[in-house]
Amino acid sequence: MSKAQRATVAEALGQGPQDFDPLPVEQMRSDFAELMAQFPVPKVRTSDTVLGERPAVLVEPEGETRPGTILYFHGGSFSLGSPRTAMGLTASLVTRTGLRALSLDYRLAPEHPFPAAIEDCLAAYRALLDDGLRPESVAFAGDSAGGGLTVTTALAAKRAGMPVPGAIVAFSPGLDHTRSGASMAGKAGIDPFFTPEGMAHSGDLYLAGQDPNQELLAPAVLADLTGFPPLLLQVGTNELLLDDSVRLAERARNAEVDIILDVTAGVPHVFQSFVGRLDEADHALDRAALFLTQHLGA
Amino acid sequence: MSKAQRATVAEALGQGPQDFDPLPVEQMRSDFAELMAQFPVPKVRTSDTVLGERPAVLVEPEGETRPGTILYFHGGSFSLGSPRTAMGLTASLVTRTGLRALSLDYRLAPEHPFPAAIEDCLAAYRALLDDGLRPESVAFAGDSAGGGLTVTTALAAKRAGMPVPGAIVAFSPGLDHTRSGASMAGKAGIDPFFTPEGMAHSGDLYLAGQDPNQELLAPAVLADLTGFPPLLLQVGTNELLLDDSVRLAERARNAEVDIILDVTAGVPHVFQSFVGRLDEADHALDRAALFLTQHLGA
Repeated sequence: MSKAQRATVAEALGQGPQDFDPLPVEQMRSDFAELMAQFPVPKVRTSDTVLGERPAVLVEPEGETRPGTILYFHGGSFSLGSPRTAMGLTASLVTRTGLRALSLDYRLAPEHPFPAAIEDCLAAYRALLDDGLRPESVAFAGDSAGGGLTVTTALAAKRAGMPVPGAIVAFSPGLDHTRSGASMAGKAGIDPFFTPEGMAHSGDLYLAGQDPNQELLAPAVLADLTGFPPLLLQVGTNELLLDDSVRLAERARNAEVDIILDVTAGVPHVFQSFVGRLDEADHALDRAALFLTQHLGA
Repeated sequence: MSKAQRATVAEALGQGPQDFDPLPVEQMRSDFAELMAQFPVPKVRTSDTVLGERPAVLVEPEGETRPGTILYFHGGSFSLGSPRTAMGLTASLVTRTGLRALSLDYRLAPEHPFPAAIEDCLAAYRALLDDGLRPESVAFAGDSAGGGLTVTTALAAKRAGMPVPGAIVAFSPGLDHTRSGASMAGKAGIDPFFTPEGMAHSGDLYLAGQDPNQELLAPAVLADLTGFPPLLLQVGTNELLLDDSVRLAERARNAEVDIILDVTAGVPHVFQSFVGRLDEADHALDRAALFLTQHLGA
């Protein structure tokens, strides 16, 4: 049963980080790549490409392709990760929807702090539109920091006078560099991946001294979401970042945006990675796939 | 396009009730039956039956039936409606899931005020379990007042020491007879169906002088949802009842319950009735169907 699976995952992850010991970023990057390599990747076709001026990976289903494009932003606290580390999630969406995805290798902090990542994501989106894609045929999807980029890139598009995409899907997005959500304290010691101290450290790498009190750094607190496309936020209750999604959902409702806040209890950050081992992961990905096909299907 | 459909529906419904003029309940019942008869009903097989000591309608798909049962509670402010008035919604879930539904003709106010309806719903659920159904194979679903009954019947089951069902789906549920949600004032004049005065009137019929400050009358404010099954709440932003769902979702998250709060902007109370005319209605029903099959599928 699924409650047993959740307990197994929780036990496998242990009590979580008890203290904080910052490692060199190169070490964190290789540790993260090793961790994410343990998750299964559904069978897809992949090829390297360029989007804007950044490398990207084109991910296509083995069978028939449905019209529409997922622009995927990987996770990794804005300083780790690549299209490869998120390939399990990206490929899961591709196989479930029949859509192709383009997963962007955006610039990382600390070498490239805010707003470099958003600039790269926006340039990638602009490249798709310049290629002739209709904005309604493009969805932004991402996990963790990449989930945050789905929202901030759409905000940046609005600011640039560009149309927003057709839909946004974010798994456990990070949406508040002011770290003011109640779950930042309330879920400390429960979140098996993050401590407030660790999160402050990676936040500092991305901020590089900049004020977090701005829309593109704290959309859960400050964003004007007027005109946003349908938005699906999926998050677990064992997360420091839970209230990032809760608060963004409230802002979306108040801005008259279609918003699904999809919360799974007793599961950790980006639990969708546990596809095949945790029924909730498969179910959540199936719901995300239905959402994407509903909004890119017209 | 769908935004145009939303506008068409909003225009067809007009500015909504501008003042409140209570009609005799028999008149309201026949008006409501006439209104709901205008909505399409997908092709299903129906037959009359009895559940507990109340009449019910068995609704089955024309094709193959999947294992599992939807126990459906119709809307109508606790004083109007019947399985027939909700048949479009019930049949839409049945055709989309392949599950059978049993739609209950529970007792209505003012002849039978609180807690008569909950007693009937609980007796119907008990009858299904006495028949040998596993609780995990039963979902509660309902709209409006019936959406409220999905939650209060599950609470009553917990109080009676019975197991909760496998899933709950509620369309625009009424979950607070204290009427303390911010949307009660904030959406007045926007909600095309309800005024606060009209809602107070139908509430009085159900309360019959009883204190609304109790769990089974104001679950959005008072319910302990611990142990609840996965819960899907769908609601529009053009609703006095919007915050009933918003607040119940918050209670569910805090109680470690799987909770999807699925909000569609610019649509009215139980917009799912507009299936075939409003893409959002079809999309919402498809999401509800996926949710039901995920949780009754094991």
